[in-house]
Amino acid sequence: MKAIILAGGSGTRLWPLSRYGLPKQFAPIHQGKSLLLKTVERLCDYLKYEDIYVITNEDYKFHVIEELRKVSTNLEGNIILEPVGRNTAPAIALCIKFCLEKLKCSPSEPLFICPSDHIIEPVKKFTENLVLCEKLAKNGKIVTFGIKPKEPNTGYGYIKKGKNIKDFEKSFEVEKFVEKPNLPTAEKYLKSGKYYWNSGMFGFTVNTMLKEFRVHSPQIYKKMSLPYEKMQADFGNMPNISIDYAIMEKTSRSAVLEADILWSDLGSWDSIEEIEAKDENGNIRIGNVVEINSKNSIFYAGERLVSAIDIENIVLVDTKDAILIAKKGSSQKVKDLVNILKARKAPEVIEHPTVYRPWGSYTVLEEGARYKIKRITVKPGQKLSIQMHHHRSEHWIVVKGVARVTNGDTVKLVHENESTFVPKSTKHRLENPGKVPLELIEVQNGEYVGEDDIIRFEDQYGRK
Amino acid sequence: MKAIILAGGSGTRLWPLSRYGLPKQFAPIHQGKSLLLKTVERLCDYLKYEDIYVITNEDYKFHVIEELRKVSTNLEGNIILEPVGRNTAPAIALCIKFCLEKLKCSPSEPLFICPSDHIIEPVKKFTENLVLCEKLAKNGKIVTFGIKPKEPNTGYGYIKKGKNIKDFEKSFEVEKFVEKPNLPTAEKYLKSGKYYWNSGMFGFTVNTMLKEFRVHSPQIYKKMSLPYEKMQADFGNMPNISIDYAIMEKTSRSAVLEADILWSDLGSWDSIEEIEAKDENGNIRIGNVVEINSKNSIFYAGERLVSAIDIENIVLVDTKDAILIAKKGSSQKVKDLVNILKARKAPEVIEHPTVYRPWGSYTVLEEGARYKIKRITVKPGQKLSIQMHHHRSEHWIVVKGVARVTNGDTVKLVHENESTFVPKSTKHRLENPGKVPLELIEVQNGEYVGEDDIIRFEDQYGRK
Repeated sequence: MKAIILAGGSGTRLWPLSRYGLPKQFAPIHQGKSLLLKTVERLCDYLKYEDIYVITNEDYKFHVIEELRKVSTNLEGNIILEPVGRNTAPAIALCIKFCLEKLKCSPSEPLFICPSDHIIEPVKKFTENLVLCEKLAKNGKIVTFGIKPKEPNTGYGYIKKGKNIKDFEKSFEVEKFVEKPNLPTAEKYLKSGKYYWNSGMFGFTVNTMLKEFRVHSPQIYKKMSLPYEKMQADFGNMPNISIDYAIMEKTSRSAVLEADILWSDLGSWDSIEEIEAKDENGNIRIGNVVEINSKNSIFYAGERLVSAIDIENIVLVDTKDAILIAKKGSSQKVKDLVNILKARKAPEVIEHPTVYRPWGSYTVLEEGARYKIKRITVKPGQKLSIQMHHHRSEHWIVVKGVARVTNGDTVKLVHENESTFVPKSTKHRLENPGKVPLELIEVQNGEYVGEDDIIRFEDQYGRK
Repeated sequence: MKAIILAGGSGTRLWPLSRYGLPKQFAPIHQGKSLLLKTVERLCDYLKYEDIYVITNEDYKFHVIEELRKVSTNLEGNIILEPVGRNTAPAIALCIKFCLEKLKCSPSEPLFICPSDHIIEPVKKFTENLVLCEKLAKNGKIVTFGIKPKEPNTGYGYIKKGKNIKDFEKSFEVEKFVEKPNLPTAEKYLKSGKYYWNSGMFGFTVNTMLKEFRVHSPQIYKKMSLPYEKMQADFGNMPNISIDYAIMEKTSRSAVLEADILWSDLGSWDSIEEIEAKDENGNIRIGNVVEINSKNSIFYAGERLVSAIDIENIVLVDTKDAILIAKKGSSQKVKDLVNILKARKAPEVIEHPTVYRPWGSYTVLEEGARYKIKRITVKPGQKLSIQMHHHRSEHWIVVKGVARVTNGDTVKLVHENESTFVPKSTKHRLENPGKVPLELIEVQNGEYVGEDDIIRFEDQYGRK
């Protein structure tokens, strides 16, 4: 079985931690790791890491590379690129095409598709379910993972189970898929014991899903007859439709597996409660938190000290440039806040002060009237584009590692505690020829220090 | 009349904004100005600025210089230094001695004494009161400013008025001074209409107060017979006592002036309500604040974006390195929090990331394993000590102004967008020979980058 992780979403429901430039699946939300990495590690319990693939888009490709590298340095080929987001049905179709054409999979190959931004525990239980899922898939089923509802949640889709599937434990026919219900309906579902939360994970064989696309989604099926590169190039013409709509609600092959796991889609800051331990007063404290007489609150500190006095039922999230405080139970309104900020063109919804690039990252430490100070990290072996700025010169001081600096016609190595100067309108390039990350401080000086004063002459990441 | 402002306190009741290194009177709390500067400006409405003096200690002297300079460059001589804090009675005694010996004041000179960290509005009303105060003082009275209570506040001392003073409007004999009452007593006081809040401002002539010290506080009076420098040197042997205890509660010369001003001692974050405008939902919003459906809260944003959802009756204060959230009405517990942090030796109660020095200030922008980055501002004409570090070298990049850099045996000027390098164990000095503030970025590199790796060879501010 191969697994494909869907990692193209740009969710900001955990703003200010998740932003367009660092969506939820890439943010170090749980135990200092990204949810994508947690997802990969979880799958590795059953699958070989080289059988794990990730579908994402060009913007997030280097985030995925970065996370996959933490598992193995050999997984860059395991990234499938969707040129634009077209929801899950076209994404899965593209993955199937990739498997058939690029990986030369047999049509009987089972595939497991899952989101990149959910929490699942414990791993062992999940693996047991995955084994069962593979068997069911090989039996011609399209398997969904159903989660036993814990409360009448109105934020999830539900699956109504039918009769037991013979010879398979915890496996049922699907009577119907239902969309997010209202509260009375959700309560009825919960009480009936016949409904599961739809966790958005699917298992099937290539063959099974191909047949279903042909019958229920001929528009997508037709595109699948194109060669892979053509299908990819034409991806913008795919219908924007989820696999639930396109296939699951129509197929007669669906099965639901009662997955007895702790599952959360971390859809809001409130849901952090499902995964983090509470102190004796019901508080969740992450980071440097000092409190007096506070109860049932979530304190998510970043780099700063967070202190609280007599606080109850409050969620506080601190990041380098933005703070959120919300009444507990109101954190789903983060989306309204994000919309307000977007309308104001607030930079805090787009990027963190630390901005990730294919070659590494930079953090703006301070910006003044005619200067800007950045800490720049370049990964070993990576290089920035050959570039030039008309309005600023740059002082570079290496604080860790070694830099190869092209500065006009000269090339030299700059070591820890050495500095160099790049004048205005001079072609230059920064590289890390070493084996450890290069860290340097850049002090920009000039009448204009905006990011758009850049002319790129050559870029190994294909950027203009 | 001369005014003396008491500015030696190290209050942290407005932590995290006020800290030991930047007490309440120096923090830019109201309309971007310090309370000390507001106090000086207020007095300037009636007095000449050269008649305004400030008493403080060595640690805070340069803060006072900095604030006084905003009014006139000529006021450095108007600072009276108390070597150690001994409460208000010895401080006032020292000021009287200063006036007699250094300023050659006549014994009939009226003095006005006031705290440096209170809010008073409007200025015109205050000036009217000050005029009246001077007249009463010249008439042999020791005048206090009484504030009509707005609520049964248990945090203030009270003054009970006696009969009207003949020929003086709004002026009364003092029947008694009373300490902070309990709530039922405070309610009784409020109801009676005979009590005022004690605002801690006093007016008297030198002569009057000398007589009172002689009668009621002979221990202090005896020290006043010493020459000024000796009295100052022996200051540590003064009794630690307030002017209220030492004189006011005993004298028969006291008078209370009904000061019809808006007054607040800003004793807690809750009291910010007394001076800042509220929006239609009762929120006070300072800085970059975005909120949805929030009520009766105080949002005090520093440099960051503060966002709030469905928040009620909360005080939030954001600074560069620490956040406080408190239930409204609980902000007096800040002192408990400060005590917890002190016990933990938390740096956030001592200094801000921006640290003020006699020559200017520095801000730590980032600290890594073997490096530290600072933005340094040197005031025009100021110079740091001749110094040396054994464990770090320093790169300096000037981003504004001009630096004169002594580096071993060489002295050179470094201009905007130029850099220089100071190796380890090399004597060096940084000066601003120019007319505008010098701003530079310092990148320290070395196996140890603590502030205590410094050997000072010469310092114009007398530091070791």
